[in-house]
Amino acid sequence: MSEVLIIGSVAYDGLKTPYGSKDRVLGGAATYSSLAASLFAPVKMVGVVGDDFKDSDLALLRSHGINTDLVTREKGKTFYWKGYYENDMAVAHTMKIDLGVFEKFDPRITGRSRQVPFVFLAAIHPELQMKVLQQMTKPQFVVLDTRDLWINITKPMLLKVLRKTDLVVVNDQEIRLLTGEVHLMKGARALQKMGPKTVIVKKGEHGAMLFGPGWTFLSPAVPLDYVVDPTGAGDTFAGAFIGYVAKYGQLTPEVLKQAVIAGNLVASYTVQGFGTKTIAALNKAKLKKRAVEYHRFASIPKIRI
Amino acid sequence: MSEVLIIGSVAYDGLKTPYGSKDRVLGGAATYSSLAASLFAPVKMVGVVGDDFKDSDLALLRSHGINTDLVTREKGKTFYWKGYYENDMAVAHTMKIDLGVFEKFDPRITGRSRQVPFVFLAAIHPELQMKVLQQMTKPQFVVLDTRDLWINITKPMLLKVLRKTDLVVVNDQEIRLLTGEVHLMKGARALQKMGPKTVIVKKGEHGAMLFGPGWTFLSPAVPLDYVVDPTGAGDTFAGAFIGYVAKYGQLTPEVLKQAVIAGNLVASYTVQGFGTKTIAALNKAKLKKRAVEYHRFASIPKIRI
Repeated sequence: MSEVLIIGSVAYDGLKTPYGSKDRVLGGAATYSSLAASLFAPVKMVGVVGDDFKDSDLALLRSHGINTDLVTREKGKTFYWKGYYENDMAVAHTMKIDLGVFEKFDPRITGRSRQVPFVFLAAIHPELQMKVLQQMTKPQFVVLDTRDLWINITKPMLLKVLRKTDLVVVNDQEIRLLTGEVHLMKGARALQKMGPKTVIVKKGEHGAMLFGPGWTFLSPAVPLDYVVDPTGAGDTFAGAFIGYVAKYGQLTPEVLKQAVIAGNLVASYTVQGFGTKTIAALNKAKLKKRAVEYHRFASIPKIRI
Repeated sequence: MSEVLIIGSVAYDGLKTPYGSKDRVLGGAATYSSLAASLFAPVKMVGVVGDDFKDSDLALLRSHGINTDLVTREKGKTFYWKGYYENDMAVAHTMKIDLGVFEKFDPRITGRSRQVPFVFLAAIHPELQMKVLQQMTKPQFVVLDTRDLWINITKPMLLKVLRKTDLVVVNDQEIRLLTGEVHLMKGARALQKMGPKTVIVKKGEHGAMLFGPGWTFLSPAVPLDYVVDPTGAGDTFAGAFIGYVAKYGQLTPEVLKQAVIAGNLVASYTVQGFGTKTIAALNKAKLKKRAVEYHRFASIPKIRI
């Protein structure tokens, strides 16, 4: 089992969905993805929080075996995001962003942390993503996430980071912005020529597609009766994915496919509660149960023609 | 192996898609679904054509083993539909409809045809669907298709037909119109209380969901590099589905699941050419090859948690 290093935002979120609203709940891409990855592998989290960050939240992360030595505490406020969702929960509407201490975030990877082989660069400014990569001595598998904002305002830098990654996670809008391709499959193949040998396209409620060199795989999303709050679904997916790969340490199509399923399963918990509440309460027993249900739902019988 | 009786429109279509345009190509729901079903089981087709209907088109149907004795030829024009698709090929825009002889279509099921056990009612007026059902002596498995038009203008009659069917095929818009539910799964469960024990929700490029009593199954769509003309995809899906079920004759979850996969596989051919061209040229060898590729793409490996 190998370790995973995760860099991204640690935040307090104000959330409003058709199911209710909560303010200042623990969130941020690094938080969701670290909690998810920690189900499978040891995690080193890299981030910054303000002096308003609660000790109990730090304790929560540590109780999941997440190493928070590289989460620095600075004078000022923790990154704050406030947003709402309407009935179409695929779209987050931002009401307020207060970068706080995140604005001057300067990630320093020290000592043995530089040697962690599995690296997840959550969707932060590509300059920061590059800075982290340059400090790693021998990354074996680098997974990149990004968002429309970074593609729009700093594409050249993002393309440089992309060239140094093994796998990129995108949605349909991001693939279009990055490659100019409307057709998902053509877009994924175009991305494979821009650096990462492997591409994951997240399709929300329709699951996730994995494009390897010369092969393709689809894992449908877990069918859910209700979604309480979609915040962090993508981060959870990516965190569970890299955690699963790190656990088995092999970069075979089989393990990558299983990791996509793990991503879908874990993300299905995140969206059934506000913020990180359900993912923080998830354990292997619950996950195994959902995996059994999932296989019943998604297993493809052989057909006889 | 049991026989399938299929009733629906037989038409000439004028088609315009981003890939080009063709006028007066053989089409209609009964045509697509009969060609698809004939890959698996003997088909009796029920429909009406005008005196402009080409003998060569009738010969084509017969060359697939489709019994056209109940396709009557009337004075007047064959049903004509003209439509176009823009880049979002999920939406058909109708430019012209000329019902022709279809306007006075009065389906008569005679002799041994009344005893056919598998019945597919393609999306025509519910009055006609009911008329057919009333003439069948012992239908074992009735599959119903419909469209927004019939739900909007003649819902009470449609609900009566629904009560007499075993399985209904709907898309997300139809499920909403029929049940008032926005959530697919809740809508499908509501439909199961309105007659059919089994519901299929077609999700276009995202595949098809099958809702049985107490179980759910998803078959992703075949990933396609290009789509030439989506006309008839849904009819093809339903035809291949009922043909496959009739071939094996059992109404078990296993066979129904396999039949959904068969529907997706065959429909993936239909959309790769104009009109019925590619489905008419399909054979078992080609289909077997695509089935192998599909299993590689959609098979869900066991994950180890």
